[in-house]
Amino acid sequence: MITASICTIGDEILIGQITDTNSAMISKQLNKIGIKVVSMVTCSDDNDDILTTLERCLKTSDIVLSTGGLGPTKDDITKKVLYALSKSSRYVCNKTQMEINRRILSTRGIEMMDLNLQQAYVPNRCTVIPNRCGTAPIMQFSFAKSRFNRKNLLFSMPGVPFETEQALPDVISSIKAHYKLDNILHHTVCTFGIPESQLAKRIEKWEDSLPENIHLAYLPNPILGVRLRLSIYGVEEKEGKKEISKQIASLKKILGNAIYGEGETTPQKVLGQMLQKRGATLSTAESCTGGYIAHLITQNPGASKFYKGGAVCYDNKVKTDLLGVKESVIKKFGAVSKESVEQMAEGARKKFKTTYSIAASGIAGPDGGSEEKPAGTFWMAVSTPKGCVTQKTASKSTRQINIERFSASAINLLRETILEEDSIEKNRNKK
Amino acid sequence: MITASICTIGDEILIGQITDTNSAMISKQLNKIGIKVVSMVTCSDDNDDILTTLERCLKTSDIVLSTGGLGPTKDDITKKVLYALSKSSRYVCNKTQMEINRRILSTRGIEMMDLNLQQAYVPNRCTVIPNRCGTAPIMQFSFAKSRFNRKNLLFSMPGVPFETEQALPDVISSIKAHYKLDNILHHTVCTFGIPESQLAKRIEKWEDSLPENIHLAYLPNPILGVRLRLSIYGVEEKEGKKEISKQIASLKKILGNAIYGEGETTPQKVLGQMLQKRGATLSTAESCTGGYIAHLITQNPGASKFYKGGAVCYDNKVKTDLLGVKESVIKKFGAVSKESVEQMAEGARKKFKTTYSIAASGIAGPDGGSEEKPAGTFWMAVSTPKGCVTQKTASKSTRQINIERFSASAINLLRETILEEDSIEKNRNKK
Repeated sequence: MITASICTIGDEILIGQITDTNSAMISKQLNKIGIKVVSMVTCSDDNDDILTTLERCLKTSDIVLSTGGLGPTKDDITKKVLYALSKSSRYVCNKTQMEINRRILSTRGIEMMDLNLQQAYVPNRCTVIPNRCGTAPIMQFSFAKSRFNRKNLLFSMPGVPFETEQALPDVISSIKAHYKLDNILHHTVCTFGIPESQLAKRIEKWEDSLPENIHLAYLPNPILGVRLRLSIYGVEEKEGKKEISKQIASLKKILGNAIYGEGETTPQKVLGQMLQKRGATLSTAESCTGGYIAHLITQNPGASKFYKGGAVCYDNKVKTDLLGVKESVIKKFGAVSKESVEQMAEGARKKFKTTYSIAASGIAGPDGGSEEKPAGTFWMAVSTPKGCVTQKTASKSTRQINIERFSASAINLLRETILEEDSIEKNRNKK
Repeated sequence: MITASICTIGDEILIGQITDTNSAMISKQLNKIGIKVVSMVTCSDDNDDILTTLERCLKTSDIVLSTGGLGPTKDDITKKVLYALSKSSRYVCNKTQMEINRRILSTRGIEMMDLNLQQAYVPNRCTVIPNRCGTAPIMQFSFAKSRFNRKNLLFSMPGVPFETEQALPDVISSIKAHYKLDNILHHTVCTFGIPESQLAKRIEKWEDSLPENIHLAYLPNPILGVRLRLSIYGVEEKEGKKEISKQIASLKKILGNAIYGEGETTPQKVLGQMLQKRGATLSTAESCTGGYIAHLITQNPGASKFYKGGAVCYDNKVKTDLLGVKESVIKKFGAVSKESVEQMAEGARKKFKTTYSIAASGIAGPDGGSEEKPAGTFWMAVSTPKGCVTQKTASKSTRQINIERFSASAINLLRETILEEDSIEKNRNKK
């Protein structure tokens, strides 16, 4: 299997001022074509550090992709290091890049400066992939097997994420032209509502019976639930997809509705698709989640097609005035109760004239609450044309994580409720 | 100078499914106490790979902080590797962590399971820093100088970002107790509403006249604005604080109300404090921000003391029905207009019976809008007992960043409006 290392160059990453997002972006693309990323490393803008890091990467992987350190200022020295590493003998001007640089600088209204001019000059041992959105070209170097005991390719790319993203397809094409690649297939199954360790127990037998070339990983997240990633190595795409489909089919039998989707999706996206499919509409009524359920739902473009609106009723008076929650109910059971959250959901559905509604009331923490209802207690309700479903849960995290987990749980409750109502309907029709 | 390496363990990072945010978070904290991060590296969930990587880091830096690979499932093997690396002879149960795990699992309503039970067991050569928000404890190992030619400390932390975040202060304390560190003082001044490049121009003279031992960094963020971090090196705390106070005093003269606070604060926190101080109340009316303004405001505990509630009026009908925005106004000027957003703000203040209100209407993008009002156009309004202030702005980023920037801008508009009303009042009283 062809392997790769990703090397990020820059002090701003090491001091934590910037989070490196390039490595994940590059790695995703490499994985898609069956290249295994064996390491990611960040080093400083220091000659020896860059050289040592690149050499180590070249020794341990076939392809090395570096980002950063190509700016026009003095602190960026990657090009100089690559000149030495590749044993180049002179800098040559890349005409395509020079044209691009002239154009970029003219539209930016900056006069063509020496520093930017120099960026089109590259070590003579490299091949250039032009950077169409920036002034630093992508440099590609090949190394003979005698050098690092592999037939290496090294790509030096700019650090600006947007420029790297734009150049990546060309880099991938060049890699594909160089190597005969094995296959890796990844597939993610998204579950919600079952904690990681319980999930592991429920699918233990299934996991143990997976073929040796399939690797399973658990990816927990408060908003996304626990995602299960299956990776299958060294098989043809068609065969691999078939094998994965088979495995997922048996996983579905075990987990049922707890699986909300496959691949890159979210509970709120799936709910949105379900609602749009049936021409249904949605409203929200939030207390402790303070607008976060509404935020998750409107995070995806096109939410206006089904989402009408919601009330953030932090104050109990707003719960009564706006949603018609009875004062006596709040007095008797408290705002964080099955009874109150039920009335919130029903009130919202009525007020906003929607098919469905989601309501949330709890204690987000970190403090507050009582012995009976400690911080982290959460009541959620969904109202449908067929009735109201409520559920209690708890989360002992930071305020932010609690809010995220509560919000996603409430969204998931509506998703599961709709599916259950559907299956009851189906069974009734069968009889 | 004491050096550190940060090591991220996990296949999910290497395949690009997750972006590593832990390293930047950890690095930021290390920098604050004067520790230099010399490398960041990501390796796979593989025994040899973890071992080689950790050993290399231990040889090249004093402190190694690893995150990840501590989950209860089979693919997480960091603990096993650390057992071998530290030459431990048995696993011992950490009682504090066991108690925490029991509590976490009981409040989550899950029975205590073997897998989670095992997480409280650690190699006997380690010291435990309890993980208060998760079931995997932080393990601290010390290595004698004879081992890697340094007196190393190694910390193994969980991969879940919020668990790492919570545990970090304890880790930092432990590091401080181990090494004699140089003095560095940091102080952050928080500004909102002036773009980075403009800000740099406005404070150019001030920046140029800073003493040599003070370093200035710009930290831009859509929600927090541009924060300016001053770091002063190699001075006694008292003297350093005095020098920084002096510099900040002259900075305040230049930037005025654009400075919303100092240190770890946010525009919404500052607004909340202002409102509480004057016993005022707040409501919100949101279209394109879809609940995110409400979320920011309720992010801080105690928001219920001043925040009454809000309407998420995604649908125009909700704007009219709930907030009394005139249909004719929406028809004539559009929902994204000065006129509509003004009526939203006034409607919310009336409906929720609050002192102040914030309203938002725009096009979050990435698509949608028109030539006249492209994606990224944003109108905000605040209503006060003295009148209504509206403002237009634009943001050309992803949908999420646009929503964040819009929301914080609207919150900041109320903060600045209150301050301006105050100063007008003051001047009137003077006369």
